[in-house]
Amino acid sequence: MLPSDQLDRISVVLVSPRNPLNIGAVARAMANFGLSQLTAVAPFEPHWREARSAVGAESLLQNARSTQCLAEAVRQCTLVLGTGTLAHRKPEQRVVQLPELAPLVGDELEHGGRVALLFGPEKHGLTRDDLSYCHLLVEIPTHPSQPSMNLGQAAAVCLYELSTRVPAPAPASPVKQDPPATSGSLDALADLIEQTMVAANYSPRLMRPANRHDLGLLLRRLNLRPADLRRALGLFRRILWRLSARAKPNHLPK
Amino acid sequence: MLPSDQLDRISVVLVSPRNPLNIGAVARAMANFGLSQLTAVAPFEPHWREARSAVGAESLLQNARSTQCLAEAVRQCTLVLGTGTLAHRKPEQRVVQLPELAPLVGDELEHGGRVALLFGPEKHGLTRDDLSYCHLLVEIPTHPSQPSMNLGQAAAVCLYELSTRVPAPAPASPVKQDPPATSGSLDALADLIEQTMVAANYSPRLMRPANRHDLGLLLRRLNLRPADLRRALGLFRRILWRLSARAKPNHLPK
Repeated sequence: MLPSDQLDRISVVLVSPRNPLNIGAVARAMANFGLSQLTAVAPFEPHWREARSAVGAESLLQNARSTQCLAEAVRQCTLVLGTGTLAHRKPEQRVVQLPELAPLVGDELEHGGRVALLFGPEKHGLTRDDLSYCHLLVEIPTHPSQPSMNLGQAAAVCLYELSTRVPAPAPASPVKQDPPATSGSLDALADLIEQTMVAANYSPRLMRPANRHDLGLLLRRLNLRPADLRRALGLFRRILWRLSARAKPNHLPK
Repeated sequence: MLPSDQLDRISVVLVSPRNPLNIGAVARAMANFGLSQLTAVAPFEPHWREARSAVGAESLLQNARSTQCLAEAVRQCTLVLGTGTLAHRKPEQRVVQLPELAPLVGDELEHGGRVALLFGPEKHGLTRDDLSYCHLLVEIPTHPSQPSMNLGQAAAVCLYELSTRVPAPAPASPVKQDPPATSGSLDALADLIEQTMVAANYSPRLMRPANRHDLGLLLRRLNLRPADLRRALGLFRRILWRLSARAKPNHLPK
C-alpha cells in the first residue's frame, strides 16, 4: 500500500451524487483503501446530510468537502481522471484501461502532483462538460452485456487498483521537478485565452461555448508545467491588453 | 478478459447471505465481469426470493443455485478460495493476497479445474468450519484502520482482479494433465479415513470433530490428483474392511 502522504494526494470527487447509500459506499471503500479526501460537487443537500451521518466511514464523511462546481472541486489537482462507461460516447481525450492506470498515477504523485478521480451521478454518469476537466478517461474493463457498474462498486474497484498497484515513490529523488500545472491554473489560462478570442473577434458568439470546451481539453492535453503556464499567461495578458487598447484607445490599463 | 468457457468455471458462493441488496450487488458485479455461476448456501428464504427479483442481473439470479450446505455447493470444485479479513484469526491454510491470486486461478483453469470463490455472511464472515473447505484464503489488502469491506464491494474487487488478470489459457496444450481432485471426492476420502479412525479406535469421541476438521484441511493441502485419490480410497477401503472384519469376525463384507 502507498504511504499515506501519497494517498492523501488522491481525492475522490462525486459529481451530483443522489443516493446516500452510494455516497456511504464510496466513503467506505475509500476508508478500506486508505484514502481520505472526498469532495461532493453540488450534492442534493438532504441526501448529502443523510450520507454524512452514515456508519462505517464517519470521520471521512465529516471531513468531506462539498463545492458548487466541478472546477472548484479539482482546482488544486494536476491530473483529473474521469470514470464511466464509454459505450455511448466518443471520448474526446485519451482513454486508459484501469489495469494500466497505476504507473501514470505513480508518476504524477512522484512529481508532487495531486490526482482526482471523478465519478458522475448514478443515472447518466459524467456529462460532456464534466469530462472537459479531465486529462484522461479511465475505463473499467467490463463485459459488453452488462458494462455499467454500481457507483460504490466502481469506486471500490478503482481504489483497490490504485492502492495496490501504484508504485511507491523512489526513496530519494534529488532532482525535484516542477510539479504539473493545476486544474485551476489551466482554467485561469483558458479564461484569458477566451477573453482574447472575444477581444480579437475570433469567433461568432454562438461558437464560444464550443471553443471554450475545446480549449479546456487542449490545455489538459499539453502537459504544461507551471513555468510554461506563466509564460503563456504573460503572453496572453499582453495580447489582451494590446487588443483592448486598440478597441478603446482612451482606456489605459492600470 | 478471459474466454467465457473459462469464466464459467469460476463460481461465486455466498454462505448464508442475509441482505437482499448485497446479494443483488454481488450478482451485478458478476454480470459486470462476465461470470454466471452463483450459489447461495442456506440463504434466508424471504430475502433470497426478494434478491432474485431484483433488477440488473435478472437471468444470473434466476439461474442461481441454492444448497443446504457448503460441501454440496463446492462439490464439483477443485480450488476453493475463502475470502474475508484475517484480523481476528490465525489462518489454518495458505493465505494469498488478492493481487497475487490470478496466476494460481489461471493454472487451475488450464488444468480443467473449477474454482469457487466463497463469501461469508455480512456480520461475521466465513466460520472456521466453512474455511475447512478452502484450499486457500484470499486477503484483499485493506487499510488496518478499516479492514472490513462491504460484501458487494469485496466481490466486485475480487472479480475485477480475476477477470482482468487471470492469464488466458495457452492456445494449444497437447498434454492434457489430469484435472485436480474435486472437493466432493476429497470429502469422500475424508469420510472413509474418519470411519477408519473410528474403527481403529484412533482417538477418543471428543476429539473426533477436531480430527475431522484437521483431516479436511490436510487433504486440501496435498494437491491430490484423481489417480492419487483412487489409490488412497482403495487403500482405506481395504483397511476399513480388515478392521471391521477383526472387530466383528462373524460379519463378512459383501
